[in-house]
Amino acid sequence: MKSIHIAILGATGAVGQTMLEMLLERKFPYRKLTLLASCRSAGKEVSVNGQNFVIQEATPQSFKGVDLVLCAAENDVAGFFIPYAVKAGAIVIDNSSAYRLDPSVPLIIPEVNKEAIKHHQGIIANPNCATIIALVALAPLHRYAHITRMIVSTYQAVSGAGIGGMKELNDQMQALADHKPIQTKYFPYQIAYNLIPQIGDFNDKGYSSEEMKMQNEGRKILNAPNLAVNCTCVRVPTMRSHAESITVEFDEPIDVSTAKELLINAPGIKLVDDPINARYPMPLESQNQDLIYVGRIREDISTDKHGLSLWCCGDQIRKGAATNAVQIAETFL
Amino acid sequence: MKSIHIAILGATGAVGQTMLEMLLERKFPYRKLTLLASCRSAGKEVSVNGQNFVIQEATPQSFKGVDLVLCAAENDVAGFFIPYAVKAGAIVIDNSSAYRLDPSVPLIIPEVNKEAIKHHQGIIANPNCATIIALVALAPLHRYAHITRMIVSTYQAVSGAGIGGMKELNDQMQALADHKPIQTKYFPYQIAYNLIPQIGDFNDKGYSSEEMKMQNEGRKILNAPNLAVNCTCVRVPTMRSHAESITVEFDEPIDVSTAKELLINAPGIKLVDDPINARYPMPLESQNQDLIYVGRIREDISTDKHGLSLWCCGDQIRKGAATNAVQIAETFL
Repeated sequence: MKSIHIAILGATGAVGQTMLEMLLERKFPYRKLTLLASCRSAGKEVSVNGQNFVIQEATPQSFKGVDLVLCAAENDVAGFFIPYAVKAGAIVIDNSSAYRLDPSVPLIIPEVNKEAIKHHQGIIANPNCATIIALVALAPLHRYAHITRMIVSTYQAVSGAGIGGMKELNDQMQALADHKPIQTKYFPYQIAYNLIPQIGDFNDKGYSSEEMKMQNEGRKILNAPNLAVNCTCVRVPTMRSHAESITVEFDEPIDVSTAKELLINAPGIKLVDDPINARYPMPLESQNQDLIYVGRIREDISTDKHGLSLWCCGDQIRKGAATNAVQIAETFL
Repeated sequence: MKSIHIAILGATGAVGQTMLEMLLERKFPYRKLTLLASCRSAGKEVSVNGQNFVIQEATPQSFKGVDLVLCAAENDVAGFFIPYAVKAGAIVIDNSSAYRLDPSVPLIIPEVNKEAIKHHQGIIANPNCATIIALVALAPLHRYAHITRMIVSTYQAVSGAGIGGMKELNDQMQALADHKPIQTKYFPYQIAYNLIPQIGDFNDKGYSSEEMKMQNEGRKILNAPNLAVNCTCVRVPTMRSHAESITVEFDEPIDVSTAKELLINAPGIKLVDDPINARYPMPLESQNQDLIYVGRIREDISTDKHGLSLWCCGDQIRKGAATNAVQIAETFL
């Protein structure tokens, strides 16, 4: 597998750039690495750890000889190019939501359901960032006692809207400091010093697309078609680590000390749970790395139905997107 | 009642200052207005709408001839002075948590349980800010179908830590812009670009004191001793409007359109619920005023137990504290 040719589609965005960094940081073995983006970026140079890469324009012909495509493009671009990549014989790991609910496409978090990869037919989907962060935290508990219901409120960083989202928060902060008018482009309202309870579009029941991903992708990943999920997704003025307040009901008893023991030994998780000493997960502490921080684990005092509540944080660009995709790629090595 | 002598105890803090502003803005009729604070502030002048007031040092003798005390002091100061005020014959409306759970002290949100005031024995308690904001939104629904369970995740502004908390967020933003080290005093960690899942101290079950207030005060205010409440309280980098993601279960069916109808006609509420057109409550829109904004009302798709979810925001200093206290005072007019 040393002779692998990898392409990153959408290499100029926050996730695409971080996919490149993660391939290098994790010393992913490759023969050739091709960075693809729109014609606007073609010819630009990207430098990571002293290595230079030139962006090429993505075309339907770009995938000849490519073994593995990491796709960080938006849905419409992903949906256009991925069939060409598959036809050219590549395996595609796609971070868009275009194929996530396709029954023929495995939806994978390696710590949670790595075994489902084997059913792939050329495309493997990378889940939504908030879903990855929640399920890395919950899967070890779900293996012990099945989760029947999740109630989730998210605190989602601006990086979810890409480099433009991060720049928008910084620019708004600067404008406010300079007493200048603020600009909005990636978010519908000012996000600096604000909260926006909308991520994606709303369905006719009043849930946003981001909220429904937690249900639909969660059911698929946990192989739990009846899992009950109620999610409220909120954009907050943090930079790149999502946080989530999660209340779960289980079909069997699970106490707090058992939950902590399961989580302390689980892959991909850092248990930070000593509230008396002011130790709990926070966005600033969990960003720029791959671990999901989990803490504030406590009995749900509002139910006698085997409930727990917890609080988790994780870097949205890394484990929420780029690292998870590279970890999927690593399973092919 | 035109001959009333009012004192504000703790007049130099964010809540005390706003109590003064609200008395003037709402044209509360008084004969005399005395502003009391610690000896550090004695002699300082406060100016509101062109009217000047001189701060006096609070002593046990300060309450002679005072009819009504609005107390915005911390618990220990409130607990020390209030018995003197009551002994001097004043009625005390106390924003601290010192007396809130005392069975002889009514805990009042005028829109919710005004009738309980009549049992007072000199002290009336003002509830916790997050509790006021949640219950103004929920009480109209609770009157229609009893709430049996609430699961709440809060997004609480820095004003909850007073003027010092607001200054700390601003100072941290400025320091980050200037590439200088940040200082923390009112919050245990940097709050700029961060989230801190701790407000108050933790009990041995892992819940913070702020989280338990939602249960304990909520039960008392709604006169629902068995109300099940699970709350997660989080400090976020917004300035003065708290937001809350709330999921509730009712003992009887209540559909979304009924809930909206109840809320649109309820006092103290502004229904902002048109997500398709990007209309929902936000901290920036709901601050510096007294209405609680409620929206994102939807069926809880994770239960068949008559569940709704909603999102609400309200100014923590005004309706969450100062205005609510002044509204209680107005019931005596």
